[in-house]
Amino acid sequence: MTIYEIITKKKRNAELTADEINWVTAGYTSGSIPDHQMSALLMAICFSSLSERETSDLTMAMARSGDMLKPDTGGFNVDKHSTGGVGDKTTLICAPIAAACGVCVPKMSGRGLGHTGGTIDKLSAIPGFRTDLGYDEFIGNVRKAGLAISGQTGELVPADKKIYALRDATATVDSIPLICSSIMSKKLASGADGIVLDVKVGDGAFMKTISEAEKLAEMMVRVGNKAGRKCTAILTDMSKPLGKTVGNALEVIEAIEALKGNAPKDLHEVSAAIAAEMLFIAGKGSREECISMSEKAIADGSALERLREMIILQCGDPKVIENYELLPQAKVKREIFAEKSGYICGISCEETGIISAKLGAGRLSKEAAVDLSAGIVFDKTVGDHVEKGERIAVLHTSSDCDIESIAEEFGKVFHYGEKNDIPEEKNVIKTVKGY
Amino acid sequence: MTIYEIITKKKRNAELTADEINWVTAGYTSGSIPDHQMSALLMAICFSSLSERETSDLTMAMARSGDMLKPDTGGFNVDKHSTGGVGDKTTLICAPIAAACGVCVPKMSGRGLGHTGGTIDKLSAIPGFRTDLGYDEFIGNVRKAGLAISGQTGELVPADKKIYALRDATATVDSIPLICSSIMSKKLASGADGIVLDVKVGDGAFMKTISEAEKLAEMMVRVGNKAGRKCTAILTDMSKPLGKTVGNALEVIEAIEALKGNAPKDLHEVSAAIAAEMLFIAGKGSREECISMSEKAIADGSALERLREMIILQCGDPKVIENYELLPQAKVKREIFAEKSGYICGISCEETGIISAKLGAGRLSKEAAVDLSAGIVFDKTVGDHVEKGERIAVLHTSSDCDIESIAEEFGKVFHYGEKNDIPEEKNVIKTVKGY
Repeated sequence: MTIYEIITKKKRNAELTADEINWVTAGYTSGSIPDHQMSALLMAICFSSLSERETSDLTMAMARSGDMLKPDTGGFNVDKHSTGGVGDKTTLICAPIAAACGVCVPKMSGRGLGHTGGTIDKLSAIPGFRTDLGYDEFIGNVRKAGLAISGQTGELVPADKKIYALRDATATVDSIPLICSSIMSKKLASGADGIVLDVKVGDGAFMKTISEAEKLAEMMVRVGNKAGRKCTAILTDMSKPLGKTVGNALEVIEAIEALKGNAPKDLHEVSAAIAAEMLFIAGKGSREECISMSEKAIADGSALERLREMIILQCGDPKVIENYELLPQAKVKREIFAEKSGYICGISCEETGIISAKLGAGRLSKEAAVDLSAGIVFDKTVGDHVEKGERIAVLHTSSDCDIESIAEEFGKVFHYGEKNDIPEEKNVIKTVKGY
Repeated sequence: MTIYEIITKKKRNAELTADEINWVTAGYTSGSIPDHQMSALLMAICFSSLSERETSDLTMAMARSGDMLKPDTGGFNVDKHSTGGVGDKTTLICAPIAAACGVCVPKMSGRGLGHTGGTIDKLSAIPGFRTDLGYDEFIGNVRKAGLAISGQTGELVPADKKIYALRDATATVDSIPLICSSIMSKKLASGADGIVLDVKVGDGAFMKTISEAEKLAEMMVRVGNKAGRKCTAILTDMSKPLGKTVGNALEVIEAIEALKGNAPKDLHEVSAAIAAEMLFIAGKGSREECISMSEKAIADGSALERLREMIILQCGDPKVIENYELLPQAKVKREIFAEKSGYICGISCEETGIISAKLGAGRLSKEAAVDLSAGIVFDKTVGDHVEKGERIAVLHTSSDCDIESIAEEFGKVFHYGEKNDIPEEKNVIKTVKGY
């Protein structure tokens, strides 16, 4: 077996054997296969793709490249993953709901990159909050509060770390089997019994079309099932930012408000669908019962209590729940006014994410620091009628950025039109159920 | 301009601009673009291909990466290139013919690799022969004898050296635009006024089908023309070894015999077609006149005299022309006998090249040393009738190889059949003329 033969096979669109996939994954992780040969194989995969069987084998080979965790929380462990979006604070809402309903949520999260945010950055906005728990502490917290959210602990999926960095440098990111194996190897290695995948679709997501998103969702669910995990994917809308805030501290506030029962419609629908599915795959009842349970956990405040407990256990200041002024505050707030009268028919989503990053809320390069106070608060969203000159949003920043040029750029993300130009609202597009 | 954007463009099958191609070529040659990004781009080119314009721009960018020579020989300089075959000693025949007819042939050649031979290895079989001429010496010899054949001198096309090594490691060799740019960049940089390209077709060649070979031939001719050079490509047969010998010293003998008027039919036809085309593009007459001139150069011994002069000028022993025993002699000669009676209907060509390399005549890896005495002499070829047990070939080697197992393997390269199974002989398939 040589890497040259394996590259040639994939270039000719032949199927690789499990042995070949295991050998390549181990060889690249250990360094015996160099970057230039691996990148040629990755590009060949972008063109020739991988079958479901090959994708499953690759995912397992990657998962096994490091620790395979078995979180001993004493309960049914459910993980939740989003493929990345703008204003996506659902983890901060769903995890406490699921925990309040008796599901264990040992959740490892990532940082934001590019135009998308990351849960670890959002939680870092809470003063004192630790996102670097050791594994025993992490599991101990889940045993106490039902949930813990931390950065990756231990030596989890080193193959993905190396392969992802290479894909990022060689324009081989947008391959469905490679995306699937990257996501699912981490989920499988972190040992959840059930996995709910939130596959974002639209301009602000990596999957721009429903058919692409469906392909990815189906592949992930099958790979998860094949590995013996319960698995559901939900396709949710990312054609506009989710909710009314983008940015770390700002999204923490919106998530807390959601747990107090004050979520905007889109955020509520998406969070409820994900939370209910987390309960359902944990066997907490029928889908209808799970929807009621998750609504109740908000209504009776039990979900908010779980968030409070988690913040306390992770050394954060729980007073932020009542006093948002304890969160990082922006030094500069720049109001944005409607450029014309009419209905808002669209908000360019990826562009909003990029502008938020320019304000300091995200990382346009891996090394960049994040301004936790920065971001955007929308007064108006798609479907709203506005008068010219009416305030539609406020930009927040404490960073040294050119706020006036960003404000001008931001004006262009709003698309105005007539009432019947407003697209139909569909926040939860489809559920891809495991089998 | 970033390499990431350029890879993405080519991955999406978009056309790269001349600026982008120049930037990538310069960046990779200088080392500012790393191997792993270049190999991703090369693999994307294998799938998306390059247009004629892109190929031409790449070829020129590569040619300009090092010295652009202007051989001051005082005459019209014609170069000749073969895409590589088994038993291909035509350079040793055509170059002296062209020189005898008043064309200047400053020819830089390469070493053999894989199953194909190289002119530099063949000439190394002549005792004392120097293949490492300095550039002034090289041109001086052409002024004296009309021809010189040497390894590359000076800093010629460093971009190709780096790109070729990377392609060789990443299974990105078999792309027509990449093959074209690799060959033509060297031809353009070495400064010939006219170029005759011998594009081999068949089992023993890199181009397995006529349509592939035609594509490559047309692309090379157009790129050469666009760069202001006269250019013709000839498609010749490589479905069986060319002539009756394979191996370095053995092919030198066959080439000398050809210049004495004793070439096997296939070798004669191919050499005559190439030599005549070299004269034609040098403006020596009509194609018919050029054919006569090249035949005459053999008949009157003038071509053989040019070979002799070249050997003397390059410090080789010219007595080899009369005494083949002065060439390296194999310690072991193993006769091969027909396994059955019938007509020889085919000789597996690539396999013959591999067996020849195993005998020591070629390099299966770049670093391997070559046994100049080793190779194969065929008594019989395609179309001949043989009786079972009749001698059909002799294997030559001085290397430490398992001659009996090689002999057994070699027996299988012969395909026997009935008279009407013999394929039609077509040594010169097609000429692709420049315009």
